[in-house]
Amino acid sequence: MSPLAERIAAGDMRALARGATLVENRSAAGQALIAELWERTGRAMLIGITGPPGAGKSTLVNCLVGRLREEHKTVGVIAVDPSSPFTHGAILGDRIRMPDHHADAGVFIRSVATRGRVGGLGPGTLELALLLDAAARDVVLIETVGAGQDEIEIARLADVTVVVLVPGMGDGVQAIKAGMMEIADVFAINKADLPGADQLENEIHNMQSLTGAGGGLPAIRQVVAAEGRGVTELLADIAASFEKQGRRNRRAEVWVTRLREMVAVSVLNSIPEEEFSRHAEQVAAKAEDPYAAVAMLKSHITHVH
Amino acid sequence: MSPLAERIAAGDMRALARGATLVENRSAAGQALIAELWERTGRAMLIGITGPPGAGKSTLVNCLVGRLREEHKTVGVIAVDPSSPFTHGAILGDRIRMPDHHADAGVFIRSVATRGRVGGLGPGTLELALLLDAAARDVVLIETVGAGQDEIEIARLADVTVVVLVPGMGDGVQAIKAGMMEIADVFAINKADLPGADQLENEIHNMQSLTGAGGGLPAIRQVVAAEGRGVTELLADIAASFEKQGRRNRRAEVWVTRLREMVAVSVLNSIPEEEFSRHAEQVAAKAEDPYAAVAMLKSHITHVH
Repeated sequence: MSPLAERIAAGDMRALARGATLVENRSAAGQALIAELWERTGRAMLIGITGPPGAGKSTLVNCLVGRLREEHKTVGVIAVDPSSPFTHGAILGDRIRMPDHHADAGVFIRSVATRGRVGGLGPGTLELALLLDAAARDVVLIETVGAGQDEIEIARLADVTVVVLVPGMGDGVQAIKAGMMEIADVFAINKADLPGADQLENEIHNMQSLTGAGGGLPAIRQVVAAEGRGVTELLADIAASFEKQGRRNRRAEVWVTRLREMVAVSVLNSIPEEEFSRHAEQVAAKAEDPYAAVAMLKSHITHVH
Repeated sequence: MSPLAERIAAGDMRALARGATLVENRSAAGQALIAELWERTGRAMLIGITGPPGAGKSTLVNCLVGRLREEHKTVGVIAVDPSSPFTHGAILGDRIRMPDHHADAGVFIRSVATRGRVGGLGPGTLELALLLDAAARDVVLIETVGAGQDEIEIARLADVTVVVLVPGMGDGVQAIKAGMMEIADVFAINKADLPGADQLENEIHNMQSLTGAGGGLPAIRQVVAAEGRGVTELLADIAASFEKQGRRNRRAEVWVTRLREMVAVSVLNSIPEEEFSRHAEQVAAKAEDPYAAVAMLKSHITHVH
């Protein structure tokens, strides 16, 4: 192993920060690093935390980190949510709302730029999760806002997906419609001291019986993250789901999808951007048909390799 | 031109049906057909109709088709919405709720299978739209349910995107949150005889002023599709938007995205599925790291070409 990989495997936080930058940039050095550390992945539990804006996801993440640290577990946090204070912490330095764990060496926090405004986890999130997994983290928490593509991607990445909802936002049934029912391993009803928590729990129950999911239904847990209420129980629900389902990274069918994406990204990155622009202009001007353009672009791949 | 391409260009409906099947299957013959007809594309106006389930999109499409036929325009309809009666018409033969235009030679209706349950226009939708464009259709209507990826994809495909909403579904602001605000060229408030139509119109207005879009704001039109009310005015709004923005197929930046997708699909299809399964198993079992797997899969591409 390279010295950097060795230091990361040993839990050195500065080495990890350096490695995370290499990986996020999708550099060759970052890829080599993950390849070197590959054998060490598969130890951490990857927990996805998703839900609509305003559901209190960051407060809940902060709370979970605290509880895990009390159990002397090492934690990694990846914030994909652009509204997350963790993200702002990473971007704005000390101007953060929630600094509880920024000084703790047992916690590594990293934010990831999102691909665009309309969803998607952002490039490098999978790789960053794998790196944190290899870096002797017991638990990796990935916070992402539930909109569009993210929720599907987070469910493919995490071992356990927690969907956070709050009562009275009128988004109970709406959120479920949007596909959250299909991805939740555990539901957390946050701000459960507000009116409507029981009603929301009933709505989720009813949807579950409609979809007829049967035995392995996701747990529903009422929490008040701001006061730490219900968080120990939520962690137990998460652990039970993990126990039942095992590690996603160990599932071949998950890797089929990931490898397809990685091949597509790698191939597209190997074609110069100006080739795409040039052919797009030709096609738009009708000087070339789209399939001829694709063939030309593909021949370019062959030359590169 | 091949005899099939010639017949399609001349507006022969049976030839078009045969061509559509070739194109939908993404066969080499389908690609050759579009390449042959490429020069003839860019005449039709592509209109996307999207919105939540229950908004009455199919009724509105049916209505628009009727109005366009009165103007002696040829029409193509692509139904990507799995709940659309057009889709059921195509699947179930004569067991359709809405047969108004199935016997009219000026209307070509085709449904497209969706990629999976969680959104996306389905493979071949772009190609099918291009074929209908080349087949002497004046207008092509693409009906898709607004959920997840579809709405982004429809906006990339259509020249004009109509977002259909209905009052009292509580999804005014919700739908806008979900990204519809960004893709709408025209808003249609359907079932405008129900209470709450004006309130919904105000909500959309307020969102527009918040986003500060300025001059080129999308028109908002109240319609009652079931009675044909407001549909002529809606068509005028669509025409005005088209006038202002021009054809998407003529825009090079749209083709950059499309060509990237087409290259990715073409490359991934050239790698045998069992190679992905085999490497995915290796990676999941930690016998191989993901980047080594990607390199192996990519070397397979080179061999194929």
